This record gives sequence, C-alpha cells and structure tokens, in this order.
Amino acid sequence: MKEYKIFVGGEFVSTKTSLDVINPFTGDCFAKTFLAGQKELEKAILAGKSVEEEMKSMPVYKKFESLLSISNELKKKRIYLAEILSMESGKPIRYALGEIDRAVQTFLVAAEESKRIPGEYLSIDWTAAGEGKEGWLKYFPLGLVAGIAPFNFPLNLAVHKIAPALAAGNPIILKPSRSTPLSVLELAKIISGTSFPKGAVSILPMDRSAGNQLVTDDRFKLLSFTGSPAVGWKMKSDAGRKKVILELGGNAGVIVTESSDIDLAVKKCLVGGYAYSGQVCIHVQRIYVQDSVFKEFSGKFTKEVRSLKVGDPLYKETDVSVMIDQDNADRVEEWVKEALKDGATILAGGNKKDNYFEPTVLTATHNDMKVCSLEVFGPVVTLEKYKSFSQALEYVNDSRYGLQAGVFTNSIKEMNQAFYELEVGSVIINDVPTFRVDHMPYGGVKDSGLGREGLKYTIMEMMEPKLLVKNT
Amino acid sequence: MKEYKIFVGGEFVSTKTSLDVINPFTGDCFAKTFLAGQKELEKAILAGKSVEEEMKSMPVYKKFESLLSISNELKKKRIYLAEILSMESGKPIRYALGEIDRAVQTFLVAAEESKRIPGEYLSIDWTAAGEGKEGWLKYFPLGLVAGIAPFNFPLNLAVHKIAPALAAGNPIILKPSRSTPLSVLELAKIISGTSFPKGAVSILPMDRSAGNQLVTDDRFKLLSFTGSPAVGWKMKSDAGRKKVILELGGNAGVIVTESSDIDLAVKKCLVGGYAYSGQVCIHVQRIYVQDSVFKEFSGKFTKEVRSLKVGDPLYKETDVSVMIDQDNADRVEEWVKEALKDGATILAGGNKKDNYFEPTVLTATHNDMKVCSLEVFGPVVTLEKYKSFSQALEYVNDSRYGLQAGVFTNSIKEMNQAFYELEVGSVIINDVPTFRVDHMPYGGVKDSGLGREGLKYTIMEMMEPKLLVKNT
Amino acid sequence: MKEYKIFVGGEFVSTKTSLDVINPFTGDCFAKTFLAGQKELEKAILAGKSVEEEMKSMPVYKKFESLLSISNELKKKRIYLAEILSMESGKPIRYALGEIDRAVQTFLVAAEESKRIPGEYLSIDWTAAGEGKEGWLKYFPLGLVAGIAPFNFPLNLAVHKIAPALAAGNPIILKPSRSTPLSVLELAKIISGTSFPKGAVSILPMDRSAGNQLVTDDRFKLLSFTGSPAVGWKMKSDAGRKKVILELGGNAGVIVTESSDIDLAVKKCLVGGYAYSGQVCIHVQRIYVQDSVFKEFSGKFTKEVRSLKVGDPLYKETDVSVMIDQDNADRVEEWVKEALKDGATILAGGNKKDNYFEPTVLTATHNDMKVCSLEVFGPVVTLEKYKSFSQALEYVNDSRYGLQAGVFTNSIKEMNQAFYELEVGSVIINDVPTFRVDHMPYGGVKDSGLGREGLKYTIMEMMEPKLLVKNT
Amino acid sequence: MKEYKIFVGGEFVSTKTSLDVINPFTGDCFAKTFLAGQKELEKAILAGKSVEEEMKSMPVYKKFESLLSISNELKKKRIYLAEILSMESGKPIRYALGEIDRAVQTFLVAAEESKRIPGEYLSIDWTAAGEGKEGWLKYFPLGLVAGIAPFNFPLNLAVHKIAPALAAGNPIILKPSRSTPLSVLELAKIISGTSFPKGAVSILPMDRSAGNQLVTDDRFKLLSFTGSPAVGWKMKSDAGRKKVILELGGNAGVIVTESSDIDLAVKKCLVGGYAYSGQVCIHVQRIYVQDSVFKEFSGKFTKEVRSLKVGDPLYKETDVSVMIDQDNADRVEEWVKEALKDGATILAGGNKKDNYFEPTVLTATHNDMKVCSLEVFGPVVTLEKYKSFSQALEYVNDSRYGLQAGVFTNSIKEMNQAFYELEVGSVIINDVPTFRVDHMPYGGVKDSGLGREGLKYTIMEMMEPKLLVKNT
Repeated sequence: MKEYKIFVGGEFVSTKTSLDVINPFTGDCFAKTFLAGQKELEKAILAGKSVEEEMKSMPVYKKFESLLSISNELKKKRIYLAEILSMESGKPIRYALGEIDRAVQTFLVAAEESKRIPGEYLSIDWTAAGEGKEGWLKYFPLGLVAGIAPFNFPLNLAVHKIAPALAAGNPIILKPSRSTPLSVLELAKIISGTSFPKGAVSILPMDRSAGNQLVTDDRFKLLSFTGSPAVGWKMKSDAGRKKVILELGGNAGVIVTESSDIDLAVKKCLVGGYAYSGQVCIHVQRIYVQDSVFKEFSGKFTKEVRSLKVGDPLYKETDVSVMIDQDNADRVEEWVKEALKDGATILAGGNKKDNYFEPTVLTATHNDMKVCSLEVFGPVVTLEKYKSFSQALEYVNDSRYGLQAGVFTNSIKEMNQAFYELEVGSVIINDVPTFRVDHMPYGGVKDSGLGREGLKYTIMEMMEPKLLVKNT
Repeated sequence: MKEYKIFVGGEFVSTKTSLDVINPFTGDCFAKTFLAGQKELEKAILAGKSVEEEMKSMPVYKKFESLLSISNELKKKRIYLAEILSMESGKPIRYALGEIDRAVQTFLVAAEESKRIPGEYLSIDWTAAGEGKEGWLKYFPLGLVAGIAPFNFPLNLAVHKIAPALAAGNPIILKPSRSTPLSVLELAKIISGTSFPKGAVSILPMDRSAGNQLVTDDRFKLLSFTGSPAVGWKMKSDAGRKKVILELGGNAGVIVTESSDIDLAVKKCLVGGYAYSGQVCIHVQRIYVQDSVFKEFSGKFTKEVRSLKVGDPLYKETDVSVMIDQDNADRVEEWVKEALKDGATILAGGNKKDNYFEPTVLTATHNDMKVCSLEVFGPVVTLEKYKSFSQALEYVNDSRYGLQAGVFTNSIKEMNQAFYELEVGSVIINDVPTFRVDHMPYGGVKDSGLGREGLKYTIMEMMEPKLLVKNT
Repeated sequence: MKEYKIFVGGEFVSTKTSLDVINPFTGDCFAKTFLAGQKELEKAILAGKSVEEEMKSMPVYKKFESLLSISNELKKKRIYLAEILSMESGKPIRYALGEIDRAVQTFLVAAEESKRIPGEYLSIDWTAAGEGKEGWLKYFPLGLVAGIAPFNFPLNLAVHKIAPALAAGNPIILKPSRSTPLSVLELAKIISGTSFPKGAVSILPMDRSAGNQLVTDDRFKLLSFTGSPAVGWKMKSDAGRKKVILELGGNAGVIVTESSDIDLAVKKCLVGGYAYSGQVCIHVQRIYVQDSVFKEFSGKFTKEVRSLKVGDPLYKETDVSVMIDQDNADRVEEWVKEALKDGATILAGGNKKDNYFEPTVLTATHNDMKVCSLEVFGPVVTLEKYKSFSQALEYVNDSRYGLQAGVFTNSIKEMNQAFYELEVGSVIINDVPTFRVDHMPYGGVKDSGLGREGLKYTIMEMMEPKLLVKNT
Repeated sequence: MKEYKIFVGGEFVSTKTSLDVINPFTGDCFAKTFLAGQKELEKAILAGKSVEEEMKSMPVYKKFESLLSISNELKKKRIYLAEILSMESGKPIRYALGEIDRAVQTFLVAAEESKRIPGEYLSIDWTAAGEGKEGWLKYFPLGLVAGIAPFNFPLNLAVHKIAPALAAGNPIILKPSRSTPLSVLELAKIISGTSFPKGAVSILPMDRSAGNQLVTDDRFKLLSFTGSPAVGWKMKSDAGRKKVILELGGNAGVIVTESSDIDLAVKKCLVGGYAYSGQVCIHVQRIYVQDSVFKEFSGKFTKEVRSLKVGDPLYKETDVSVMIDQDNADRVEEWVKEALKDGATILAGGNKKDNYFEPTVLTATHNDMKVCSLEVFGPVVTLEKYKSFSQALEYVNDSRYGLQAGVFTNSIKEMNQAFYELEVGSVIINDVPTFRVDHMPYGGVKDSGLGREGLKYTIMEMMEPKLLVKNT
C-alpha cells in the first residue's frame, strides 16, 4: 500500500498519526498518509515566515518560470494524477481528467498573472495641496497565507489557493480534506522540485483542532476557506486581524425560457445536475422552466437522466458513481424522503444503495423542503414551472444562497433583467450555473461567501497596496 | 450689425478681410467677422508654441478649474448662445439648445478627465535582463494642435477639439466653418477670461489656402479634422509627420426587426432622420425593416414625417427648417430626382423651396443611387424591407462608410451578430445611429474616418507616452 | 442656544435624550442636539432598507448632480461651517476652513467617481470550455452601510463614508462623535435638499450601546469605522457577515536625511506635528534625523515649535489651541511624565493648563515609552538621531502601527528602500506622513487598520462584483 | 549550398529571381533564397485577405496555443537559429543567441496578451440622453498588415510585427531585409506547422519596387516599418488610408553624473556602444559625463574599449566583428574623418579594414559633425563633459531624434528632471538607452518614429475599437 508523507516546510515527513485513504467506490483503504499535529504545523509556520522576505523579493521571471514548470509537470502526469484523484474521491475519470486539466490551467494563468501585478499612477495635484506631487501605487505580498480545501475538487480547489499565493509572493500552508489528500500531496512533490524556497508551500492534512489554528493564529495574514457555510462564517468571527476569503455552498438555480434552445438546456442541465453526483458548489439544484415548454423540457430531461451510465469511476464511460461517503448518501436519502412526504413527486431516480444515490429528479417541491432551501450536495434536482420571468427570478432569489445562476434565453430584456436582479456572483446566459473557467472571478453573495477566487482576483486579495507619494 | 473680432493668440483682432454671416432662414447678413490671413495665422502659431511649456507644466487643479469655469459660463449663457447658433446655422432652437448643453457637458467631462490622465506601471523583470528594474509610463502633451470644425455643430464639434486639447495640455488653433463662426467666437470670449495662457487657444475663420497650412505646417503636432471624406483623406497624405484624426461622414443604416418595439423605432428614426434637416454625420439615411413589420413601420413612419413642423428655426415648436445653403438644397434635389428616375418612389416629401427641402422618404431604391451610396446630408431617408437578419446586415455593410448603425431588436443572437459583423464604429441597440453622448468613443471605419473622439479618447490621442525605466 | 435635530430617515427629529455640545476652548455648552435610541435607529434602518432598490437604480447623472450640488452648497457655506466646526472641536479656524475645503473636494470627487464605476471585459475562451462565451463584470451597490466617525475631523471623515456610499448607490447611517455632531448635522440639512431619496442618509449621534448595533446588525452590509485600534479590531470580530473597513490610529515616523532640504523638513514637521494639537491619525509623532544634520534640524525645529501661536481657535492667527477634552490632556501629561522619568529630556514645551497642552519636543526617548510606542494623539513629538538609513527604517518599523511615513531625501536608493521596506500604507517622499489628499488611497497596515479610504477605493469596497457570462 | 524557399500564403515557393545570402565576415555566399515579384505578392495578399474572417473568429485558446508553440519551437532550435542569424548578419554569436531568446519571449508574451485584449465598460447615462443605456467597447482585428523589417535584428524585429499581428487576429505579409532573410524564413517553417490558417503569414524578400506596394496598396490596413527615417517618413505620406507605425533610428545619448556608480556606467556603455558594432537603433552614440568624474570615466571606458575582443562572430568570445557591408564601413570611416578634420580627437580606435571598423571613441566633437547629429549606426561613440545637469539634458535634446536616453544618477531631482525634459520615448535610469525588454512600449518621438512597439501596445495599434450601446 502506497504511503504519502506530508509536506512540511519543504520536507516530506511522516508523523505519529497515520491517516487511511479510502476508495469510496470499492470501500478499500488503498493508501495512507499522516495527520499533522501541533508540532508539524508550527514547523510549517516558522518555515513559511522565514521565507516571506525571499518570496517578496523574488524577481518576476523566477516566479513565472517556477509556476509555469508546475503547470507543465501536472500536464505530463495528467493520467497518473487523474487516477489517484478518481480513487481518493470516487470522481468519474472523465471529470477527474478535466480537473487535472483545470489545475494545469490554474497554474498557467497564475504564472501569467504573476507578471501582471498592477501598479497605479495617481496625479496628486487635484488641489493646490498636492501641487508638485504624484503618486505610484504598488502591491506587496501580505505574508503567510492559510488555505483550507474541500474534498470535491481535491486538486484544483487547493490549487486555487496555492497558485495565487505563490504568484503574489506569499508562502502558504494548505490543509486538504482528510478524505482526499493524495492528489495535492502529489502536487507537493512537483512544487518541491521548483525554485520556490523551502517553506513556500506546506501541505498538511490535519484534524479540526489543529486546523483551527489556521483560523486563529495571527501569524497568518489571510485565510482562504472553501467549504460549508456554517463552518465558514464562524471562521470569519474567529479570524482575528487577518483577511478572510470564504467560498461556500449554494443551491444554484436555472431558468429555462421558451425563447431558448431546449435541447441545449437539457444537455447542459444534465451535466450541471449530476456530474460528480452533484457534489459541486455550483451544481444545478433547482430548474425553473417556463410553463409553455415545461412538458418538453421535463420529458427530454427525465429521459436523459435515466440514461446516465452508472459505475466504477475509473471507467471512462461512467457518468455517475458513488458519493464521497455513507453519511452523505444517507443525508440525501433523508432529504428526499422528507420532500416526498411533504408532497414532492419523483420523475426519476430516488433510490440509494450503500453510498451510491441514484440521479434523481423531483417535482412538486416547495421552498420549505431541504432539497430546495439547503445545499443538497448530491445528485438531486428539482424541476418546477413558472409563468412570468419575474416570477422565475423571484424563485431563484428565494434562497439564503447566491453563488451562480443560469438562464437559457434569447431575449435581451430577460438577460438584462436577470443580470440586474439575480442575487448571485455570476449569471450565466445559455449555460448552467455550474459553468466556471479558472480565470474568471468566482464567488458568492448572501450566505454563499465573501470575496472572489479566480487568479487575478485572488492574487489581488492576497496583496496589500502601498502608495508612494513623491515630488515630480 | 454685430461685429465679431477673431481670437488670435489671446487677442481679439480684426483683419483686412471681413466675413459676412448669413442667417440661412432669412437670408440676411446679421453679423460680420473676419478671415485670418497668413499674418494672423503665424501670430497664432507663435503664440501657441510659446505657451507649450507653460501648458505642459500647468498643475492639474488649475486645468480643472479653468475647464470647469468654461463649462459653467456656457451654461449661464445657454439661451443667448443657442440663439446665435440657431441664427448662423438655421438649426431649430430646440436642437441649438441641445447643442449648447452638450458643449457644457463636453467641457465638464474634459475638466474631469484632465485629472485622470493615466499612468501605467510595468514590471520590467519578465526576463533576467530586466531584473531589479521597473517601468512607469506617463503621458505628456504633444504640443500645438490644429483643429478644423464643420458647420453642422458649430459649437460642440469645435469644443470636441478645443476641450481635449486643453485637458491634455496642448495649445490649439481652431478653424471654424466660415458659415458658422459666431458661437465659437463667443466661446473664445469665455476662454479668454480663464487662467489658460494667452495663445492656448486661437479661433480663426480662414480661407482654404490658409487652412491648408494647418495641414502641412510641421509645427502642428496633430491635426483633428471633422468634415467631408474627400477633403479628409487628402489631408492625411499632406500632413507630414503630424498625427491625424479624421471624423468624416457616413450614410448610416438602421435595422428594425420584428422583435422590436415598432413605435419606439418610429419615434427614434424620425428624430434621427430629420433633426437639423439630416445635416448630421450620423443622420439616419437608410432604414431596413423586416418584411413582416415593414407595412406597420412604413405607415407609422410616413405619417409622422408628414406631421413634422416646418418653420423658423427660432421658434421652439419648429422641427425642421431650411438647409445651410442653396447649394446643398440643390444637390439633395438632384439626388432625389436621380433616384426617382432610376425607379425609386416617394412615400413623403420630395419638394424643395429655395434652401428648404421637405422631409422625404424614398423606397424602392437601390444601392447605385446617390441617396443610398453617398452621404446625403439632407432630410432624405430610404426605407426598404429585408428578409433575413444576415441580409439586413449585408445591406448596411454595403457602403464605403462605417460610422454608426442602429438595430432595433430584442434578440440576443441578433445583437451579437450585429455587433460582430457590422462594419462601423458603434452599434446602437434599440436606438438610432444618430445616438451620441459626448464622453463615448465616436468615430468611423472604412471611409468614415480615423481615430476616435470622445474626451478620454481624444485626450489620449493628443498625448505622447514616455517611459521611465528605473531600478527598484 | 441653538438646537440641532438629528436626521433620521430623511426627517429632522428630536428625541428624549438631549446632548450638550461643549466648546472645548471656552468650556461653554453652546448648542444642543439629541442622542438616538433604539427606536430612532430602527426607523433609520427601515428607511435605509426601503430605498436600497431606488438607490441602486438611480441613473448616474442624477447621482452626479446631487453629489455635485452638495459640494457646491458646502462651498457656499464655507465660513459658516468652519466656525461651527471650530467651536465644537477646538480646531483652529485655519484648519477648520481647510477641512471644509476638503469636504467640498470629497463630495466633488465622489460625484465624478460615481460616473466611473468600472466594468470589466473578460474573454472567457482561454480554454475550449469557454469557446463562444465572453464575460462582463459589473459592480452593484452592497446595500445599507453603517459609518462611525471620530471627533478629530468631524466633517470630512464623516464625508469619507457618506459620499462614497451615495456614489456607490448605498444608503448609509452615520454615527458622528458625540463631542462633534454639529457640522455633520449641518451637512444633513444640505443633503435633505437634494434628490437623494429620504432614508438615503441618516445622521445619528448615539451612545455606545446603540452604536453597537451598527456593528452587529446583519441588515448592514458594510461597516466603516474610523477610531481607535482597540475598539476597531473588536468590531471586526463582532461584525457577523458584513464587510469591515477600519481606519485606526498610528504613531507616524519621519526620516530626515542629510541629502534633504532641512528647512523644508522643519517647516513640514511643524505642521505635521502640531496641527490641531496632534489630534490627527497621521500626526508626526516620531522624527529620526541623520546624525550629521541632527543638530541643525533640532535647533531650527525647536525654535519654531516655541514660536507657535497659541490661542482661541476662532482667531485666524492661532496655530495651536486646546485639546478636545480634559481626559486627553491628562493622558498626554501622564505619558510625558512617564517618559521623563524613564530618561527622556524636553527640548520644548511639556506643560499643561486645563485641557491645553503645550507643543512639546522630547528627545532621548526609547521605544518602551508610551510617547513612542502608542498613539499619543496630542502635541508631542520625539526627536532622535540615526546613523544608517537602514537603521532609520527599522526605527520607523519598530511599531505595532503602520499608517503613513515621511522621508526627506534626494537619493533614489533611499526612496526605493523606504518604499520597499517601510511597513505602512503610504510613504511620502519629501513631505510628512500627515500628507493626505482626499482621492488617494488612505489606510494602514499592521494594527492601523484594514482596507483603504479615498473615494474610488471606498466606492469599490462598497460594491459587489457580478459577472455576466454570455455567448458572443 | 542551402536554398531557402520563400513563404507565400502558406506555401514555400521559389521564384525566377534568386537572392544570394552573404556571410559578412567571410564574404562568402553561403545560402540562397528568392525575391518575390508582383505575382507572389499578389498571391500572398489574396491569401491574407481570404483568411481575415477566420483569423477574426479564432477562439482565444487556439491563438494562444499556436503562438505558444512557436515560442517553444524557437527555444528548441535556439542554437541552430542563432548560428544562421550570426552568419547572415555578422552578429557575434553571444548576441545572436540573445536575439533568439528575445524572439522566444516576444512570441510568449504575444501568446499571453492574445488572451488579454481589453474590453471597456462605459456608463452612458452621464446625461439624461443616455438614461437606460450602457456601452461595451471591444477591439476587433484591423485586417491584413504589412511589415517591413531591417537587417540588424533579422529575427526579433520581424517577430515584433508578426507576433502581435497574429495575437490581434490579423494576417501579415512581412518583408525581411534582403541581407538577412534566413532566420525569419526558418521562423516561417515553424509557423507553417501551427494551426494558423494558410495565408495568415507570408514572408517575402522583395525589391524596393515590390516593397513599395506594401506601402501604397489599400488592401493593407496597417503598415509597420522599422528602418531609416528618410524612408519611413516618406512612407507615411504614401500610405493612403492605412495606419502607419514607424520605428526609425536615433543618436542616443547617455548622461553620467557624479552621484552615479561609475564602474556600472562604464560597463553598460561598453555594451551599449559596441554590441553588434553599434548597428542598433538605440546604440549609445553620445556620452555626456559630469566634469568632476569625466577623467575617471574617460580613462576606464577607453581602456575597456581597447580590450574588446574582435573576431569571427561564430566564436563565443567575440565582442565585436565586421559591419553588415562595405558601404556602411566606408560611410562610418568618412564620418569619423570628417569629425577629425573639424577638430575631434580620437581616444580609441578609428581604423577600418574592409568591412570591419574598430570600436572608436571620439572627443572634442561638436554637434555639427555627422558622428553627433546623424545616426552613426556603427561602433563610434562620442564622449564629452558637461557642467550642470540642465546643460547635459540640452545636449541630449539637441538632436532631430528622440528614441531613448540613459541617465546614471542617484538623485531624485535629476531623475525627475530628466524624465520631464528629455525628448525621447524612454528614459532609462542607471542603464544605457540600449536597454529594451520586449514587452515594454518602445518607440521614438521627433524624427525617430510614430507609435510604439512592445506586444500589448502593438496589438492595440493593430485593432479597431467598436462600441456597443445597449439598454440595461
């Protein structure tokens, strides 16, 4: 069985506490790694602090070359990494490969953006008080960053913290999910071969109590957390003086209007709804279809959902596989049952076997049901009709969350109204809310989070402006 | 009879050659001014060159205050100036007032933009060759500018050269149209009361031979010309080393689709087609209507055209009045006759009386007719139907010109296609091509011109970048 | 005695709790106003929430005109307002007039920036996943804002919260200092005459317990606080999901090198050190002079300090007057005594009479003394020598604070090093850290705060990005 | 002997007119290629026009990948290409390798910038006329570009036209110098292996009469010329409606002040003065040294000049080799003789052998001599002293040219004054004017040119803005 050492201040080390990594599909423990304790964390923090100055003064071309080399290495090891990722997470290999490709892209863009940290010129003489002066604003790295990543994109969501931290010139300590630590520990090996100084990156699986120090310790200048709302918002209160970025969940809505391409909408909603069993922050959870085309959409969509190929995530034909663990499958089952009891009906799916939950379509739901109002984080989609477009927008907005929303339409008026009124971070026209490319600003409003990821945006969050006012 | 001295290097002077200013509606000479000769031009050039350094080093707050004070003065004298402008140009007072308001806005925005000349930061160390270096890019005024303005917006199109020149820190010599020199000479009085140095602005009506020196003299660093294509493109060849901005004419097209608001389209096309008798660079000349709504549009539009109120431009009810002179009215008549002879039919108007030409709608035209292919610069609109949207785009593009185009539609696809395919400077969705606000980038492609006006854009054209590379 | 009603959701109202306003120089109560209780605050919140939508959809030109009209009204009432401000704060009239001028400028720039809320274009097709798509990023107002302003710039620091909130399209509830509520209540009268809807701005003096609701109530989307570090950082923990901007204090340092213009440095340090008795966040607290010129600087500076004109703040000759209250004067006296006991010596001043404290220069201090390490917020400056420039930078950085720093030098190397190494928000070359113009980004690092003020920057903090991804 | 076919519309073809390529060091003809005639040019133009639409609609990721693959291929063939370049141009191999590295970088940056074509958001409602509207400004490729490249950087200066043209989405026809066509024809082979359509790039050596069509033919939308001022400015007049970028020559000046690091200045001036025998547009031609350090600088510099290693350009130790041809060597000799006759004295060098001219230092020159006032484009440097810094700036500015200038100083005041007053495109502090990195804006003022190169800047010159105004 393969053993992965954890990455502490540039060294690969083992600790007293070993951590089994389980394949959710087979249920086997196929690899082991270690949990960091207080000692390893302290070592990583000291290593990080000790290279802050070196990171800050690193010339741009060295940062660029190192980040680019990571991107290139990930590309070379694409299939190898995708298999590890698939095994630790149960993610179908097709999507696992897609995730590696995105991590390749995330490091590539980070490399490019590291050259493009903006500066700003300010004419200061807008009043006589500033006569003879001008200002130049530059950005400097904040210092040590703490990152906490989730299980559902074990590599790329960790990379969305590591790559911008490095591009900005910050050392970072990253805590992966304990379920899925392997792909990011593989990344650690690649990073250790670059010219970034030892301590620039540490990758430490750890328990929540150790993880808590990432939140409270004042030596971290920024905390970037991707995970559940309840945990995230608590962290904001506990974070002391550091800045906080929160990428939390949602219950994303889609609107399908009669002016849209229904077949396109069906096809996109299928992927958005069931890829990785809906364990995606921007998974399509609620679909609202204009009543004139509801029947058409419903028929086509339900048929496609029933045709999804279920199986071993390592098979390239597999569309859907198991969920990350039994607890989550149980929770989804419970929520669906609750919905059915309260009047919902099933158009497809609805059954569970162990940690596998069938791709499910519910209708006749209402907003008090958990499958509507909370983040289902499973392969369950609700399908409802609407009359007026304004009503559809209200349905989508009737949520504590606001991450992304999709609108299928050919109407300029509807596009404008949706963009203006939808309370979300992004409105995707003629695609699902699940749409994300790695350089776009990504993040939510309301309970869905604080701040934006996406390389350029994260990099700026991870830097501090400093103004030089000088005579001209 | 009122006499206006011309504005030469900060002095108001008379010359040996007087110039009568005719009211096109009454035919009376109601004021006189003077033509500059070689001597006055030389004096203005020397005055301009002598203050280049002072203009360049003027603190931002002084430029701002002076430009703002001009805007405020224009506002105070709004009605007085509108009447002068109406009399010299025959422009209905409602539109003359609108032009003063726009000149107020143009100076206001110039004032604001004078504070916001951008600088740019460049990290230079993208390769080892640049290690330890950084770059700061700033913009400096080019030096003396030559401006040539047309008769149709006697004040605001002159202001679009004067205001950005001053905001950029350049002295300018402006040649107004000999038909309409008064409103801009009124502006000269306002400018002479500010803290801009004497010589910063000269306003000189002049004959073409003197005007030619504005084109050829190397002491001018930029020529900004608004006028006819034939004259403009010739200037580009004769301009020596100076930069050239050309704002030339067009034969703007509008597309009205069945998904649009027909009443809105009618209302907008009426103003776009006949305001100031179509003597506007972006006047609506060619309307293409989807066949399913052609009849509706045609009926409503023709009815409205017939209801336009004709009369004395000084009356506030007047919609349409005379053209600038007999020659232009004759030319329009000739073109319309040619079209009729070649098969066009008249839906409204078509008659001329002296220098008044009726608001006219033609149909059954084709693209070989002058009323289609050339710039009619008169109150004549052609109205044709189209089948597919692609065809409509082809119709609009089948022109040597490309200034602006209007598209009335509610379809995202049509909007996208129009924006991508139309060969123009601006595509206006759900409004006429005649739409312009003074801070937007304005200018044409193909034979319609070179470069963009609109304060921020003109200011940048009137400046030279200079890079400082220094150690960090 | 004049009575000021407080400004609650567009109405001027009195409450059950009256608040006496004391002239710190005479000790007289010269006006009264009212403290808001829970009821008034709730009314203001409801009023603010009720106009969020109207504020969000206000066209730019209306926001611009309203903000500009406030600026113009403040200008008209300049002397009247300065006298009120001087009386409530004890600020010498010369500086009070300067503060009104700055508030005029702050609203002017807010008006201009309200037109320039940026949008951003993103090509989305950086990978095949984004083919056929593009992104447009726009910014929308956050919603209701809470602002808490201090006594030392009673008007302009409140305006730095109100003006950007309005420019961004946010309603705001502002709590002024209970010592100095009058000038901002005068502003309320001006605002109530504009076209901003009722509820867009409320101005409520209140006690700390009511003020605490500004921090904790989730209906506020952002809290902007200017005040002391201890209070500020606590607020960050208590703020729930809202964003927080903290503008806290400092103990600003100045470095005077031998390559600098000593007379300039003396003159600037005099104003930076003693204007408004040092009750300024960026007051010059610590001066480090290169040993070769220490004697010269020290002699000239001490002489000037002794020549400062002390007296009634309403006299235009007055340089220095009383402190805001007895408590603060006592605190400063205690700190100076502690320093003297620990070995410091006095070069000028050192005495207190009632709430007046003499302009004071100390030397032979060390960093354990409160006059060095804490924010003195009084007319006390320490003067020490240094040998190497690196040492001087270390002295300035040896502080928990980091707001601004000044460096007098003609050396490019020293400028570069200072900008790179000084841990502050701004480095001012050849001027004191007290330098601020209202459009520049202003704010501190370390314990001095979080985020930046300065119109453009605050406006952006007060808005939420929203991305539109659409087909092209 | 190797034969190179020319690259016409995606095909490698031979023509009736062969062209011998001479090694300037050996005098041997070591390869042959062909001159394009009218027929080949027409074929290339038609091919270019035919792919304009395909280039315009190419998704960003395909442009990026293709440009990146060119960069990577150049890197792989680095040594092979450097040898060819060295042989065709006589450029010492060390500098030839440097040029290949720069071409690698130029394509890399073009790839990155192709993703970052900016768009701009405009709020249109600054007046009531624009209520309900917003603007989005995008940039579209101009269409077919003509490029004319010189002999002195046979590859990288061609790449500075080809790479941005492709990044912008424009096809391009490039005319290399007839002396040095090989390295860029090697590039053609690399380009032909990418996914750019056939016709996107043509590389055609041609005679001046055919070359003239690049200037006059209206099917080209932009002409980018690098070469001599006399030829360049003539082109501007002949260019018809197309845009023109001119990168012409200069006689760059350096100022060495007493506050600078003299050894650094000597070292940098040596490379700037004699690399590639001064056949560089920004070669150090005129050095002005403050009188207090003149002797020191002069002694050290002259000594170093005498130590330069002369020899075969293919040897890696070689510092200096032959000039491009006999004519140029003769011209330099004649200019030096003229200077000596008029009173100049020689501090080093001065002799010619065939097409080799010794690295030469002259002093006691004055500005009427050709070695001062014209572009020497050979290994000749003048060395003079100055008293005041203002005087030094006047010396540098006393030139018809204005490309770049270098200033060695540690004084902030001198840096500011130099940046403000020097009439050049770039001021390089503490380095020579010869400094250039490929992403910085590069270009001259006065007779030295028009427009800027440097990827981002050239790309923008090669695009046309188009504005969409739409309802919100």
